[in-house]
Amino acid sequence: MKSYRKELWFEIPARRGFVNITPYVEECLRESGILEGLVLVNAMHITASVFINDDEAGLHQDYEKWLEQLAPHDPITQYRHNVGEDNADAHMKRQVMGREVVVAVTAGALDFGPWEQIFYGEFDGRRKKRVLVKIIGE
Amino acid sequence: MKSYRKELWFEIPARRGFVNITPYVEECLRESGILEGLVLVNAMHITASVFINDDEAGLHQDYEKWLEQLAPHDPITQYRHNVGEDNADAHMKRQVMGREVVVAVTAGALDFGPWEQIFYGEFDGRRKKRVLVKIIGE
Amino acid sequence: MKSYRKELWFEIPARRGFVNITPYVEECLRESGILEGLVLVNAMHITASVFINDDEAGLHQDYEKWLEQLAPHDPITQYRHNVGEDNADAHMKRQVMGREVVVAVTAGALDFGPWEQIFYGEFDGRRKKRVLVKIIGE
Repeated sequence: MKSYRKELWFEIPARRGFVNITPYVEECLRESGILEGLVLVNAMHITASVFINDDEAGLHQDYEKWLEQLAPHDPITQYRHNVGEDNADAHMKRQVMGREVVVAVTAGALDFGPWEQIFYGEFDGRRKKRVLVKIIGE
Repeated sequence: MKSYRKELWFEIPARRGFVNITPYVEECLRESGILEGLVLVNAMHITASVFINDDEAGLHQDYEKWLEQLAPHDPITQYRHNVGEDNADAHMKRQVMGREVVVAVTAGALDFGPWEQIFYGEFDGRRKKRVLVKIIGE
Repeated sequence: MKSYRKELWFEIPARRGFVNITPYVEECLRESGILEGLVLVNAMHITASVFINDDEAGLHQDYEKWLEQLAPHDPITQYRHNVGEDNADAHMKRQVMGREVVVAVTAGALDFGPWEQIFYGEFDGRRKKRVLVKIIGE
C-alpha cells in the first residue's frame, strides 16, 4: 500500500467564498503515483468545508443565500460561542456543507460523474487556512 | 491490496424518491472477494445523495417534507442557478443528505448497526443516473 | 494492509448530548499499530452522529438550539415516523450533523488541524448505543 499526503493553503479575501480545488487534487494524485485507491480531502479548520458539487456561479450565490438563511451571521449575539468571536454561524454552515469528501481513484484518475468538482467552502476567511489531501492505494 | 469498482444505474420515475440500495452494495462486496477494508458508495450526480438511515416509509415521507421546507423547489425563480434549469433546490437537498457514505468491511460483510441501510436519494429524477461503488481492502 | 476494528459504547443520560471521543479514537489507533492509512468513525445507530468540530461548550449549546430550529422535536405528531416512536426529529438532526468521519492517519497519529476534535452526537439517548472505529493501512 502506498500513501501520500499534502496540505493545500488558501486565503479567501472575504468572510465567505467557494474555490474549485479539483486541479490541485488532481495534481496531488499525479504526484502520488497511485492508480487504485481512495482520496480523502478535508478542511483542517472547523469553519470551512470541502464538498463536491457543480462549478456554476449562480448556484454558488444560491448556496451563499441559503446558508445565510439556515444559519444567519447576524445578530452575532444570538450565539453563545460568540464571546470574543463572531464565527458561530460558520461552524453551522460547515456542518451543512460537510468537512470532507472521499473520492475513488480508478486508473490513476478521480473517478467522477460528469459534473462533479471539489470545492473549498470558506465561512470565516481573511486568513490562511489549510486543506488536507491524503491518498492511499497502489 | 485489492480494489473493486462498479456503477449502479437508477431511473426514478418522479422528481424525488428514495431507494434502498443495500442489496446491490452487498452483491458488489461478494463479487469483490474483499474481506477487510472500506466501501465507498457515492452519487455520481450532484442532485442526488447516498446516505444511511432507516428503511421506514413514514420517515421517508418526513424527509421529503422536511427537505422541501429547508430548500423549497418553488418558486423556481428564487434561485439564480435556475436559468434554463429548475433543479437548484436539488443541489441543496443533496448537501443536507450528503453525497457519499463510507462503510467498514469486516469478515466479508458490511459492518452495520441494527438498522443501518444505504439509500439512493434522488432530488431531480426522471432520467438515468449513476451510483459508484468502490471497495478497497484484502 | 492491516485492519483494526473496535466498537465504542455510549449511554447519554439525556435525549441529546455531545461527547468528545477523540481520546478513544487515538487509543484505537495506538492499539492498531497502523502508521499510515485512514480511520473511519461512524455512528452505528441512525439517530446519532459522529462529526468533527470544536470542543467549546457555548458552540454545543448553539448546535442544540439550531438543530431544534431546523428539525423540532415537538409536536411529535408532525412526523409520520412517530407511530409508537417519538424520535423522527433525531433522524433529521443526524443527517445535518452527519453519520461518519474519515480521518487521515499520518506517522501513527490522527492528522488533524489545530482545533479538530471528534464528537459523538446523540439525538435520542438514554440507552446504550455504539460507535464503530475501523482503521486500514500499514
